[in-house]
Amino acid sequence: MRENNNNQADGAVLSRSDPPDACSSSSSVPALTSHLRLDSTKERSGMERLLRKCNIKNQLVRECMAECLSIYILILFGCGSVAQVTTTQEEKGHYLSINLGFALGVTLGVYVSAGVSGAHLNPAVSLSLCALGRHPWLKLPFYVFFQVLGAFLAAATVGLQYYDAIRTYSGGALTVSGPTATAGIFSTYPSDYLSVWGGVVDQVIGTAALLLCILALGDRRNNPLPDGFQPVLVGAVVLVIGISMGSNSGYAINPARDFGPRLFTFVAGWGVDVFTAGRGWWWVPIVAPCVGGLLGTLIYELMIEVHHPPPAPPEFQTSREEASGVELVMEVVERDCEKLGS
Amino acid sequence: MRENNNNQADGAVLSRSDPPDACSSSSSVPALTSHLRLDSTKERSGMERLLRKCNIKNQLVRECMAECLSIYILILFGCGSVAQVTTTQEEKGHYLSINLGFALGVTLGVYVSAGVSGAHLNPAVSLSLCALGRHPWLKLPFYVFFQVLGAFLAAATVGLQYYDAIRTYSGGALTVSGPTATAGIFSTYPSDYLSVWGGVVDQVIGTAALLLCILALGDRRNNPLPDGFQPVLVGAVVLVIGISMGSNSGYAINPARDFGPRLFTFVAGWGVDVFTAGRGWWWVPIVAPCVGGLLGTLIYELMIEVHHPPPAPPEFQTSREEASGVELVMEVVERDCEKLGS
Amino acid sequence: MRENNNNQADGAVLSRSDPPDACSSSSSVPALTSHLRLDSTKERSGMERLLRKCNIKNQLVRECMAECLSIYILILFGCGSVAQVTTTQEEKGHYLSINLGFALGVTLGVYVSAGVSGAHLNPAVSLSLCALGRHPWLKLPFYVFFQVLGAFLAAATVGLQYYDAIRTYSGGALTVSGPTATAGIFSTYPSDYLSVWGGVVDQVIGTAALLLCILALGDRRNNPLPDGFQPVLVGAVVLVIGISMGSNSGYAINPARDFGPRLFTFVAGWGVDVFTAGRGWWWVPIVAPCVGGLLGTLIYELMIEVHHPPPAPPEFQTSREEASGVELVMEVVERDCEKLGS
Amino acid sequence: MRENNNNQADGAVLSRSDPPDACSSSSSVPALTSHLRLDSTKERSGMERLLRKCNIKNQLVRECMAECLSIYILILFGCGSVAQVTTTQEEKGHYLSINLGFALGVTLGVYVSAGVSGAHLNPAVSLSLCALGRHPWLKLPFYVFFQVLGAFLAAATVGLQYYDAIRTYSGGALTVSGPTATAGIFSTYPSDYLSVWGGVVDQVIGTAALLLCILALGDRRNNPLPDGFQPVLVGAVVLVIGISMGSNSGYAINPARDFGPRLFTFVAGWGVDVFTAGRGWWWVPIVAPCVGGLLGTLIYELMIEVHHPPPAPPEFQTSREEASGVELVMEVVERDCEKLGS
Repeated sequence: MRENNNNQADGAVLSRSDPPDACSSSSSVPALTSHLRLDSTKERSGMERLLRKCNIKNQLVRECMAECLSIYILILFGCGSVAQVTTTQEEKGHYLSINLGFALGVTLGVYVSAGVSGAHLNPAVSLSLCALGRHPWLKLPFYVFFQVLGAFLAAATVGLQYYDAIRTYSGGALTVSGPTATAGIFSTYPSDYLSVWGGVVDQVIGTAALLLCILALGDRRNNPLPDGFQPVLVGAVVLVIGISMGSNSGYAINPARDFGPRLFTFVAGWGVDVFTAGRGWWWVPIVAPCVGGLLGTLIYELMIEVHHPPPAPPEFQTSREEASGVELVMEVVERDCEKLGS
Repeated sequence: MRENNNNQADGAVLSRSDPPDACSSSSSVPALTSHLRLDSTKERSGMERLLRKCNIKNQLVRECMAECLSIYILILFGCGSVAQVTTTQEEKGHYLSINLGFALGVTLGVYVSAGVSGAHLNPAVSLSLCALGRHPWLKLPFYVFFQVLGAFLAAATVGLQYYDAIRTYSGGALTVSGPTATAGIFSTYPSDYLSVWGGVVDQVIGTAALLLCILALGDRRNNPLPDGFQPVLVGAVVLVIGISMGSNSGYAINPARDFGPRLFTFVAGWGVDVFTAGRGWWWVPIVAPCVGGLLGTLIYELMIEVHHPPPAPPEFQTSREEASGVELVMEVVERDCEKLGS
Repeated sequence: MRENNNNQADGAVLSRSDPPDACSSSSSVPALTSHLRLDSTKERSGMERLLRKCNIKNQLVRECMAECLSIYILILFGCGSVAQVTTTQEEKGHYLSINLGFALGVTLGVYVSAGVSGAHLNPAVSLSLCALGRHPWLKLPFYVFFQVLGAFLAAATVGLQYYDAIRTYSGGALTVSGPTATAGIFSTYPSDYLSVWGGVVDQVIGTAALLLCILALGDRRNNPLPDGFQPVLVGAVVLVIGISMGSNSGYAINPARDFGPRLFTFVAGWGVDVFTAGRGWWWVPIVAPCVGGLLGTLIYELMIEVHHPPPAPPEFQTSREEASGVELVMEVVERDCEKLGS
Repeated sequence: MRENNNNQADGAVLSRSDPPDACSSSSSVPALTSHLRLDSTKERSGMERLLRKCNIKNQLVRECMAECLSIYILILFGCGSVAQVTTTQEEKGHYLSINLGFALGVTLGVYVSAGVSGAHLNPAVSLSLCALGRHPWLKLPFYVFFQVLGAFLAAATVGLQYYDAIRTYSGGALTVSGPTATAGIFSTYPSDYLSVWGGVVDQVIGTAALLLCILALGDRRNNPLPDGFQPVLVGAVVLVIGISMGSNSGYAINPARDFGPRLFTFVAGWGVDVFTAGRGWWWVPIVAPCVGGLLGTLIYELMIEVHHPPPAPPEFQTSREEASGVELVMEVVERDCEKLGS
């Protein structure tokens, strides 16, 4: 009977794993499935055996690498789109394509590290989550450092990819202001009309809106998003912020996104102007977003999340929140069979 | 045995709660999960213990705050995008980005209050749902008041964020008409060619289309949308209305969206012109959308929803509608075991 | 025990129906859920009792009304976006917004009738499905008639909504060609350079691409789309066709979409020119799409679908295709219990 | 009892298959469902019986046809959008619509072959998957050949559809460079400022970003995407690459996408210039993407995937990864009943 039932079980497993097959292959990457199959049946390709060797166990190291890579993707696409619009003088893109570049950069960046580090991509997000007790304070400095590092490396990559274009467009002179200024490709500078305090208000409001929406999208007791769909909506938040709050000072709303590339421009030849320009603008996109992030978090918590009815006691709450009802069946089975047994 | 089975059960719970973990963290907010964990294991961060204190039990108060906050998000992004396009003279955005600003504003606004108040965001929606007996008439005035309040506060925020930009663009003079008019950033005004009755027809058709689509998207017997995906499509409805019905009078299709910001412009220095302009246009975006909403509701109900085959009797209907088949299993288990017992 | 188990069952049902609650309300329409609740608890609002009276049982009538309403939505948004771009001389929209207008019109139109008529919205689609034996030939004429009727009524609505705008833009003269031609708002006309045969080829290729993609999206053995997500992708197909095949002759790719509005322009004052213009273009968007639809269907069937491995025998196939494994459990339960019984 | 239970089982099956019905019909293609029904009840339409005859069993042949058709869709929409923008001189589309054309082309192309060949659409993708041991090296040449063939045929179709337009725009002279050059409609050419090595770097970075994102989206241990949602995001990757890396050399990032159409232009009258232009550019979009693909794969593997905690032992891993908990229930049932039996 065990035998016979195990076969059944296998049958079940097979029938279950079919859809995933279909799906993961429908992602133009039949990768994972075959991968798993390989795992179980222990034969591996040369490259794969090689890669296995590099396995790192330390959780913090993994998270730092993931944060670094995902903000790298964000800046690579984001600043890349600015470079394309700037160097082609709006011939191959407009302001909207810059908004799309950063939005899709965020979405894809989040997918790159979602399952490993939680995909913060933004010191203001990490800070707010720490304040909420949803992320350990100890990890904060590491996250921030690798976020800035990833942004710096991505800016360097954009600089490399657009080297010819930038040289041609700017006539070789790397300037922060003027008709052929190119520093704006990498980090943000305020509009001429903007006062410093106007800029601080702008960044505080923008980042508050960002955190408020991110928390709403992550609040399972408020709305049940399909698994893995949230990165798309976080990207949409960044898109709409760029569309509605971008003209004052380029919506950095992210200290790492702004400071990393600024450092690159500083070392890469734009010189100290990157810090003096805009009446010493550089500190605003670092300080204001942190304030704004905390403000937005506070608003969402005070107006929505803290008022949710308290979750039911564990075993019940599971069936409420995410159980497929399986526990219930098992309980019933137990009870019934017990009754029978007695 | 119980012991042993409970372990099993826990095992099951764990294996179930894994995906959600992954998912909620994939939303760049590992928030909720750890949050729940905290709940069960009773240790909380300082801020969290603090927030708990502010918990409000009253359902109506919670709904009003939610409505207020979600229309705040809508107007913050919507009017913000108009401000950006206007003050940059289309350099950093076009009409399409205004459409996107309002559309994404609606989508995110809905996510902010979906689980609390049902996310009406629009008195015309609340009215239609009341007429359909799907929302209590008693709550209507509260919803409407807080929708208007939220819109007013958001308009004030946009005014603050774009203070420097508006002053520079308009040369300091806050006008409702003329080359540097800025009142259009906040509320809608008709095109010169539009007659008042043409405007009423325009608003009635627009809001009718809005409600018709919203009801279709919410009609589970018509199409099975993935949970939590509908806010995106409601945003798409607003996007396409802006693309196809925006030029006549700026598609208010929402009394609160138009009147709240108009009040702000009135008190903030644009003066009484905001009411007299457009041959006294201000009342049209308040009255016409209510008529249109009821019309669209009637059309959808009469042509589609009332003709759905009646739902099956409760216990069966559940298995038809949304059961994971679990009930069925339990019934079978029961029956079998009973048979055995006897 | 029954008692006790029923409670359990209810518990399960509740815990199951929770997500739907959340979700349907998250669509800013807590409609359906309360609706269902009302059904079970027999109390109804006045309007609802009234609506019940209009219930129509006849399936064909329901399908015709649904087709009519959903193509109405398509044309209302589609032609509306052309009207907006034309009458504002591209100030409030570009060609891309027309593409978006028709694409989102299709998506929302499909949602309006998906569960009732299958949401063809297009005689070429109905024809292809009949040829494939997936739709009864008998229904074809009814579907086509009501699709044309819906398109006609929608064109009339757009004419009404843009009455002032069209009169102002065209100076009162409703012309099919010339600098202020407005007939193009409603139906398609070829570019000057296009030969009639070039136009036929254009429409055949466009509609073939449409059907090929629609069949691929509906082919569950090819890719497992989330339930209710396909209308969005069908809209994406129409969007990309407009982006890549729109300039030759305005991508009608739908006889009803083109002929219905053309009839309206004929009766509404544009006169017989709507049939004579473009060297008698009017018949091309009627005939060519039907040919193209069949061609695209044939290509997809011959290159992909007919080669799928045949589905497994029914009871097994279900567990393969869509079963939640419930059947399997039941079988196991049966077997085990039988064994015990004996 | 068996009888009685089978009825139950059928009941369950019915209740399960309901949603799929709804859904597949909600895709404006009630096709598949009726199709399945036909299968089971053995009556078929004429066309369907005919199609059955063409069934091909050979897996490799099916995969090659699928790859061919899906890249055909990609190029048909992608190059079509370039043709529209070029021949209308940006009147009916801008650079962004070209980006959308290729992005949606990829998404729909993936849906066309996802379940059959895994939808590579790109020799660089096939190569990387082979290197990872996730695709058999033996199939590589076949995939590549049919990818190039599909791209060639699609380019021919675009040439046919835009024959009149291209002749009119270019005045009959098919040129690779100059004011009315049209070769750029089909394959990519570098900007004047771009050095060959700059172009190699550009293509390497672009394709590396592509593979890195594709692998992240397909990595189930990183993020749980809804089934069948990945093609949309793969399209988004191509969109953002076009927005942020398109201006240097037209982001081929796909040897087949570039070489197939280039061959067409060579034979169709543009002559040998298509190979000599851009200082012999033609080999760069063939070689560089392969290098870039491997680089991107290596980066993602080394920074994220190899560090995932190893999957749990099979029977457990299933419950972790994708089981609906069914196996667990069965185990419990077994154990309980055994206990009872003893």
